[in-house]
Amino acid sequence: MSKHKIAIVGATGYTGSELVRILINHPEVDIAAITSESRSGERFSDVHPFFQGICELPLIKAEELKTEDIDLAFLALPHGVSMDYVEKFENSGMKLVDLSGDFRLSSPRVYNEWYPKKHTYSKGFDQVAYGIPELYRSEVEQANLVANPGCFPTTGILAIAPLLAEGIANADSIIIDAKSGVTGAGIKAKAVNQFSSVNDNFKAYGIKFHRHSIEIQENAEKQLGGKASVQFTPHLLPVDRGILATSYLRPVGKVTEEAVHEAFEKHYADQPFIRLRREAPSIKDVRGTNYCDIFSTYDERTGNIIVISVIDNLVKGAAGQAVQNMNLMLGLSETAGLNQVPVQP
Amino acid sequence: MSKHKIAIVGATGYTGSELVRILINHPEVDIAAITSESRSGERFSDVHPFFQGICELPLIKAEELKTEDIDLAFLALPHGVSMDYVEKFENSGMKLVDLSGDFRLSSPRVYNEWYPKKHTYSKGFDQVAYGIPELYRSEVEQANLVANPGCFPTTGILAIAPLLAEGIANADSIIIDAKSGVTGAGIKAKAVNQFSSVNDNFKAYGIKFHRHSIEIQENAEKQLGGKASVQFTPHLLPVDRGILATSYLRPVGKVTEEAVHEAFEKHYADQPFIRLRREAPSIKDVRGTNYCDIFSTYDERTGNIIVISVIDNLVKGAAGQAVQNMNLMLGLSETAGLNQVPVQP
Amino acid sequence: MSKHKIAIVGATGYTGSELVRILINHPEVDIAAITSESRSGERFSDVHPFFQGICELPLIKAEELKTEDIDLAFLALPHGVSMDYVEKFENSGMKLVDLSGDFRLSSPRVYNEWYPKKHTYSKGFDQVAYGIPELYRSEVEQANLVANPGCFPTTGILAIAPLLAEGIANADSIIIDAKSGVTGAGIKAKAVNQFSSVNDNFKAYGIKFHRHSIEIQENAEKQLGGKASVQFTPHLLPVDRGILATSYLRPVGKVTEEAVHEAFEKHYADQPFIRLRREAPSIKDVRGTNYCDIFSTYDERTGNIIVISVIDNLVKGAAGQAVQNMNLMLGLSETAGLNQVPVQP
Amino acid sequence: MSKHKIAIVGATGYTGSELVRILINHPEVDIAAITSESRSGERFSDVHPFFQGICELPLIKAEELKTEDIDLAFLALPHGVSMDYVEKFENSGMKLVDLSGDFRLSSPRVYNEWYPKKHTYSKGFDQVAYGIPELYRSEVEQANLVANPGCFPTTGILAIAPLLAEGIANADSIIIDAKSGVTGAGIKAKAVNQFSSVNDNFKAYGIKFHRHSIEIQENAEKQLGGKASVQFTPHLLPVDRGILATSYLRPVGKVTEEAVHEAFEKHYADQPFIRLRREAPSIKDVRGTNYCDIFSTYDERTGNIIVISVIDNLVKGAAGQAVQNMNLMLGLSETAGLNQVPVQP
Repeated sequence: MSKHKIAIVGATGYTGSELVRILINHPEVDIAAITSESRSGERFSDVHPFFQGICELPLIKAEELKTEDIDLAFLALPHGVSMDYVEKFENSGMKLVDLSGDFRLSSPRVYNEWYPKKHTYSKGFDQVAYGIPELYRSEVEQANLVANPGCFPTTGILAIAPLLAEGIANADSIIIDAKSGVTGAGIKAKAVNQFSSVNDNFKAYGIKFHRHSIEIQENAEKQLGGKASVQFTPHLLPVDRGILATSYLRPVGKVTEEAVHEAFEKHYADQPFIRLRREAPSIKDVRGTNYCDIFSTYDERTGNIIVISVIDNLVKGAAGQAVQNMNLMLGLSETAGLNQVPVQP
Repeated sequence: MSKHKIAIVGATGYTGSELVRILINHPEVDIAAITSESRSGERFSDVHPFFQGICELPLIKAEELKTEDIDLAFLALPHGVSMDYVEKFENSGMKLVDLSGDFRLSSPRVYNEWYPKKHTYSKGFDQVAYGIPELYRSEVEQANLVANPGCFPTTGILAIAPLLAEGIANADSIIIDAKSGVTGAGIKAKAVNQFSSVNDNFKAYGIKFHRHSIEIQENAEKQLGGKASVQFTPHLLPVDRGILATSYLRPVGKVTEEAVHEAFEKHYADQPFIRLRREAPSIKDVRGTNYCDIFSTYDERTGNIIVISVIDNLVKGAAGQAVQNMNLMLGLSETAGLNQVPVQP
Repeated sequence: MSKHKIAIVGATGYTGSELVRILINHPEVDIAAITSESRSGERFSDVHPFFQGICELPLIKAEELKTEDIDLAFLALPHGVSMDYVEKFENSGMKLVDLSGDFRLSSPRVYNEWYPKKHTYSKGFDQVAYGIPELYRSEVEQANLVANPGCFPTTGILAIAPLLAEGIANADSIIIDAKSGVTGAGIKAKAVNQFSSVNDNFKAYGIKFHRHSIEIQENAEKQLGGKASVQFTPHLLPVDRGILATSYLRPVGKVTEEAVHEAFEKHYADQPFIRLRREAPSIKDVRGTNYCDIFSTYDERTGNIIVISVIDNLVKGAAGQAVQNMNLMLGLSETAGLNQVPVQP
Repeated sequence: MSKHKIAIVGATGYTGSELVRILINHPEVDIAAITSESRSGERFSDVHPFFQGICELPLIKAEELKTEDIDLAFLALPHGVSMDYVEKFENSGMKLVDLSGDFRLSSPRVYNEWYPKKHTYSKGFDQVAYGIPELYRSEVEQANLVANPGCFPTTGILAIAPLLAEGIANADSIIIDAKSGVTGAGIKAKAVNQFSSVNDNFKAYGIKFHRHSIEIQENAEKQLGGKASVQFTPHLLPVDRGILATSYLRPVGKVTEEAVHEAFEKHYADQPFIRLRREAPSIKDVRGTNYCDIFSTYDERTGNIIVISVIDNLVKGAAGQAVQNMNLMLGLSETAGLNQVPVQP
């Protein structure tokens, strides 16, 4: 049987190179084309020299894409740019996985509150599925457009969804204290991401106003079927990859350690990419892989439920989850091409 | 005027070397002796080669100390060992700054609940002052025995004390999500502190049961004059030095950003080692110094007060605060010898 | 066709876990058994928790191995221990890839000069092949015992072999200034490998006397067919994985940039795991992979040939090259199971 | 006695902030003014927030400097810019320490070969002293203009000077394999200095053509009184600060370990900032200090002399050596204000 043809729109960022890292060994798809507006004419390995001998595809402009030959395209583009391509490819026949934030929120109105650019393609919101398969698998399977979630939201939502869905945790005082590696900020050179700004250092950022707050909160409300309040504080770790979120929730009524564990077992025991851990996981435990590792506990002394969740922000937080979504959209095995083992240490 | 003579009991750990780093340039004191049971007979620079040419003092056994010539001794010893030396030096005439955890809690009973060894010198609790000068300056000035606080408690208590003292924050749901560099765990070689366990990695540890929880909670209660509940979760950062604590508190009644700031101004504006920051600080901002930098804010959307506090765990969290306490105990200027500037980057 | 059955003798080190990382996805072999004398009875994922759900094999003692069912065993054991197992498995029918240093040198006599333990199985030297396939492929294909090379020797020998084989470089003044990540020192907790000893730090070690000096020198002499003198200086990098060697050689007679490049092209153009790079490579360019990336140049101003070579010390420097050797010994495709893409960043 | 008044011209880089870190506690000088063309009107602590409460001086434009009140100015400016200021301040009465590369080489002609901009102030070369006090103390004492050396040249020249001066080492095949932290590249945001480009990574750069090659070589020739050939290869370490150089030299005639050591003792035993080490030093041994630590040995097996030298590139490699030069130029104690102790770990 012939392989599915996919395209990657946007080659120069971390997401683009991570998609190629995963897809180049995928047994059911071929990378038919990679586009870059700024580097077209060069090879992929000119932009990412560590791909020398692995992926030497020429970079083309998006307008050169033969969309009729492509089954699915990944949009690895900046926020605010991606929406134009979703509109442009509307009737192309290609299914789309959009890795930007342009269609993750519930409406253009909410988008306009939290993102700097006014949304220009509200029609996309009517058809999009939010791409966390563990929570919305059937929507993803049927979608032609999937909004691939943000890295923090993936980590945060997976940590709290079972507790909200089971009605164990109070939705009006959720605290998610999250810590991320530097690649979450993208590849563009900035003073705050210089080695000497980050190395041997640690700080919070985006306090109160990070746009992933609303993405988490909206999904918390979907799980709950009601209003939620989410305090989300991101911090910058001196590591390349990885997110760890420490979530604190108040129980509804009386709760036990066992009840907490059962909620996670019920929702995640059969999920191929979630590992319920006996001990608190570290971010290197999932490096390079599509796993989300979760540890949960209840503190009787203080009455808090504590959940620790970790992912690789470039894999389960971006390219890996995008491939997981692709697999479902193309009717392939959900785990195809995603058998990476943690690179540890 | 002749300088005060001080001794350092315990030379091999990070605290011992950090005390020497600070005291060697202190204008009012001389290091008269340094002890080590395991390395006596060697020079200090044999144990810490980077002191070659800076401190070549011979290491002696504690029993060789001429205590009558010493004004003050720092005990840089492990938990459970230090109490024996406090007892031994009881009538020596030396003032003592104990950097271990042996006299930080309110009673032997509480100590025995949270530390593995049964306390054997309960008399010490009658006379000890808890050495955070910003909160207990007059007690420290008059004490002959000071319990130098833990690194996490220093970071945590300084972050929440003004809010509790002013009655702005609720004491029954305090969350302190703390992140520390590796030196907090001491110099002893352990698998969990190997480079490849820590580098490019991040994890929580001591969830629910870390002994600094009770040290913070007891001091929260002192500030408040009532019962408090503190959820304290430490995490291990891939950095040498530095602690950042992100504290979440619920307001009592209606609160404003200004009211939060005023509470901190009122208590800390004149403290030489606290810097109230306009922006969220990073741990490198205080590296090598005795500063505690604090940023506070109120989130109207969620109703949480958020406080970010940072210290260098080996300085304000250990040796620097010990010298600050020494200065007060000996009647010197509180800032003497503590003019280090952040080593940044 | 049924898969080959392999065993891993020694599970607790980095080499053991890295072998499993690679072999678990190998299309032609099954991991039939993993042994550990110290942890037998536990599961592999108890020792390496990041393998939860990936490899849950029980650990057995080496004596429990059903050797008659095993086609090939990897010995992932310490130097000085491995020789006993080579002897024990002599007539077992299993082919052996020994990842220790016990059979890498030319004779027990040389071994005894550079290693602390007296060699006890000299017979092994008669049959062993030195496992750098790029230089000794046919020997490896026919061997029942392969000595998997040291990580530094792999990096160093591959950098200089073509220049010596072609007679371009002088053999009596080779300098190899090498820099390695921490995992090269093994998993055992030691003071020198503690995070705070290594982080933000850098130093040379083993100056003049590192045992990889002789391993490199003996192979230089094999390539040359004459006497060589190799100055090898290792340094410790604050990274987990990766070796970079900067080699300096003096030309024989007149040489040009082109002649240098041609020597490398001639020997390596068809090697699947060597990438001749247009620019100086960095260690992350090969992280997690079996590649050796090489850059060479000639400096007319000074008359030196300079070669930069990089590998991942746990892959091409250990487990990956071991699998490459296994593939050849079992008659499989040399690249089977070794299609890992660099994890970058 | 009143303190000397100094000015810092150029505030925004690492060198500027490091000068303030050292000078703010200097007992004999006052920082009278700090200039910045791009940030004038702001405070120094606005540019470097970690100086909040430590240095709140307003930044002025260079033209606003009251040069008649200033005894000495440090030029912390980019290469190619500094020469204009040296010219401008020619008759100002201020002594100058230029931290750029503009007057380090022997002539405008050599400068024009190795630097991109044509030199426009050749007169400066007539009067400048090269500011390594250990080699050129009396010139520095009498100079009104000192060229503060490059960080690599300081590390490299101090490592080889005694061997050349004593005629022990051959000058025509010197290899200096150097490794530097990232701050050596300056504070400007660049892709190559992004955290994810540097972290867990290592690479060589500037192979054959780095401009510090000629600065080292010219000084080698001064020490020797003849022609020298220096191969200098810099590498980028994933650390903030610190340079380690591994130098390889061939002996002239027969040499011994003792003769090598004696050469260093003879030249450096009385130098306050050189520490001759019994063991190979690491870069953290000198972090934050003005020390240059040196270890030397002779390898009888290979016939090479090996020297390991380490400095903090921002201190002995820049701001610290600049203050050392200032002390000499102003007739102060050479060590005044330079009593920093290594920040370790």
